[in-house]
Amino acid sequence: MKPRIVTISRQFGSGGRTIGEMLAKELNVAFYDKRLIAMVAKESGLALEFIEETGEYSSTNSYLFNMYMSVGYNHSGYAPDVLSPADRVHIVQSNLIRAIAEKEPCVIVGRSADYILQEREDCLNVFIHADIEYRVNYAVAHYDVPAADAKKRIERIDKTRANHYRHYTGQQWGVASHYHIALDSGKLGLTRCRDIIAAAARGDDIEA
Amino acid sequence: MKPRIVTISRQFGSGGRTIGEMLAKELNVAFYDKRLIAMVAKESGLALEFIEETGEYSSTNSYLFNMYMSVGYNHSGYAPDVLSPADRVHIVQSNLIRAIAEKEPCVIVGRSADYILQEREDCLNVFIHADIEYRVNYAVAHYDVPAADAKKRIERIDKTRANHYRHYTGQQWGVASHYHIALDSGKLGLTRCRDIIAAAARGDDIEA
Repeated sequence: MKPRIVTISRQFGSGGRTIGEMLAKELNVAFYDKRLIAMVAKESGLALEFIEETGEYSSTNSYLFNMYMSVGYNHSGYAPDVLSPADRVHIVQSNLIRAIAEKEPCVIVGRSADYILQEREDCLNVFIHADIEYRVNYAVAHYDVPAADAKKRIERIDKTRANHYRHYTGQQWGVASHYHIALDSGKLGLTRCRDIIAAAARGDDIEA
Repeated sequence: MKPRIVTISRQFGSGGRTIGEMLAKELNVAFYDKRLIAMVAKESGLALEFIEETGEYSSTNSYLFNMYMSVGYNHSGYAPDVLSPADRVHIVQSNLIRAIAEKEPCVIVGRSADYILQEREDCLNVFIHADIEYRVNYAVAHYDVPAADAKKRIERIDKTRANHYRHYTGQQWGVASHYHIALDSGKLGLTRCRDIIAAAARGDDIEA
């Protein structure tokens, strides 16, 4: 089955978001990252800044959230007020990602989309990483991060992404076998990463 | 820097060895797996069957081995009799892999070659995996493994490979960020995996 959806998980500063954007342009499909956040904001009535922060970086140990998920309400699209704002963001966001995947071929960066869409067979799940030196340089050049803080900030962001992923998926972040393709953007370069993923996404020889 | 050496680590039954063979043919370079084992056997004076078993699947907790490695003798090519046979195999094998990498462009499957050659900048390190159903079918078709035993046997072999890798490298096996390219052969197919790796190995746009 030819993939319709490409999900991209990435270490901070690996250029994974940029690869996703280049890929969506190459494949001529929709691209979701901040735009997705804005949609979530609109739908949930929660503040944009809060969603941007919690949508990928927070984790809770809410008893209510686990209960809510375990009884299968998570597919209903309804995120009750009794849940914490972080958990509500996660639920609204998950339902939005499912709806987007249903609607159109696209590239989705971050937001644990690989896990949220795990039951679909038309997803190609990608992980982008690079060594710390590459990511420090990338973050300084692209995100206005001061060079002195870059390494610490990268490690903190990766740690919070990993915690968030573990909390909402029960799985370890960055394990090769969770992704169909994992690439070192520092070694391979962004363009080659885009080309590898685009070729795989175009291939109708891809097995389900 | 254009890669000269491709190392391939792989889950049992993922077809990683076959991809390595196809890749070496495509790139017209030497291919090392069993041939490497035979060379180790000849050099160490240890029995071939023993090496095949311990070279990738054993782990020890030898105090002597750790002491030997910590004082930096591991690069000397000398594996003293006082060490266990498993540790001697590892040391002789490591030195052989270093010598091969120095000698000629090649594809090396297994044997923790990615870790052994970690100081070289001309290596492209690859990990091949697939889901358990694919690997059960592959093992039954290619390795004469009875279908009833296949799943258990695959899990046991992966576990011993992971233990061996952790013992000799101190690292977790199968973490995406340890490899430049990690691919799901069940999803992508063996030929596409070969093509992706070959394109990256040929690219002189590859950054060191």
